[in-house]
Amino acid sequence: MGVTVWLTGLPSAGKSSIAREVERLLVRGGVRVQVLDGDELRENLCADLGFSRADRDTNVRRVGYVAELLARHGVVVLVPVIAPYRHSRAAVRRHHQSCRTPYVEAYVDTPLALCVARDVKGLYAKQRAGTLSGLTGVDDPYEPPEQPEIRIATADRTVTESAGDVLAALIQRNLVLGVHG
Amino acid sequence: MGVTVWLTGLPSAGKSSIAREVERLLVRGGVRVQVLDGDELRENLCADLGFSRADRDTNVRRVGYVAELLARHGVVVLVPVIAPYRHSRAAVRRHHQSCRTPYVEAYVDTPLALCVARDVKGLYAKQRAGTLSGLTGVDDPYEPPEQPEIRIATADRTVTESAGDVLAALIQRNLVLGVHG
Repeated sequence: MGVTVWLTGLPSAGKSSIAREVERLLVRGGVRVQVLDGDELRENLCADLGFSRADRDTNVRRVGYVAELLARHGVVVLVPVIAPYRHSRAAVRRHHQSCRTPYVEAYVDTPLALCVARDVKGLYAKQRAGTLSGLTGVDDPYEPPEQPEIRIATADRTVTESAGDVLAALIQRNLVLGVHG
Repeated sequence: MGVTVWLTGLPSAGKSSIAREVERLLVRGGVRVQVLDGDELRENLCADLGFSRADRDTNVRRVGYVAELLARHGVVVLVPVIAPYRHSRAAVRRHHQSCRTPYVEAYVDTPLALCVARDVKGLYAKQRAGTLSGLTGVDDPYEPPEQPEIRIATADRTVTESAGDVLAALIQRNLVLGVHG
């Protein structure tokens, strides 16, 4: 049974690290997994899109469309993509529902101060230096999920612990088998 | 083992009908199949693209990218999309090769006169009436494959016979099992 797990959250919240760790653990268990990397998809599917509200919405819908195609064929699809707008995320959820494909929203809930301290891609520094604008969570909106299936508080926890939250939620929903249980 | 089968050919050559028939036969055999419908993808992934040379190229590359993602996870992906330019098709083939994902080009080789007679979507009529321009094979280029893995001559043959050509080629390459052999 496939599923799309959308990991939404601020830049440097830990979305990609958690997705890669979930991937590592599931692949070890023989599960088909695909991480849809936001930067790679922007290059290959969304080179026309920038970071305006409309473009971010289109980006999220396109990624959601591809995720559903994979998930319907039994792949666990992990999507570590910011997806700042509630209505875009809701559209992706509705699309999955209309296809009867499982969908799970995982909110990577990391305080902004911690994201700024991590600043994996140097985006917060660039914004502060004035060489980048429209950064989600700083000078561009981020609308946190109200009822995510999974809420992952990453502060003071390891990536493996956070990945465990995702795995537990998938096992609980019978979306992957807990083979080592 | 997944594979992308790209069915290239003129409008109304029979690409979609053959793809749907291959799908029907493989699904009956328990194989995971996905037809990537050109019109649906244009709506969902390529709404920004028109029919200029550059846009057609980008369209083909995006569809090829999605096809590879599915094929690498064991899906037989059937792509009935015109793909008029050799260099775009070559790019999709190279992308699959770089991912070590099987790729098969099937040239649906139907004479233009027969395509015009079929005119499933009424495109040739519109072009003749002057309400459409840039129609592949008429007033826009179509570069036929030089060495396709499969050449399907559809004149005087049923869709099921043509679909059989595709299945035979896949079985011959060990890409699907000939379960009823």
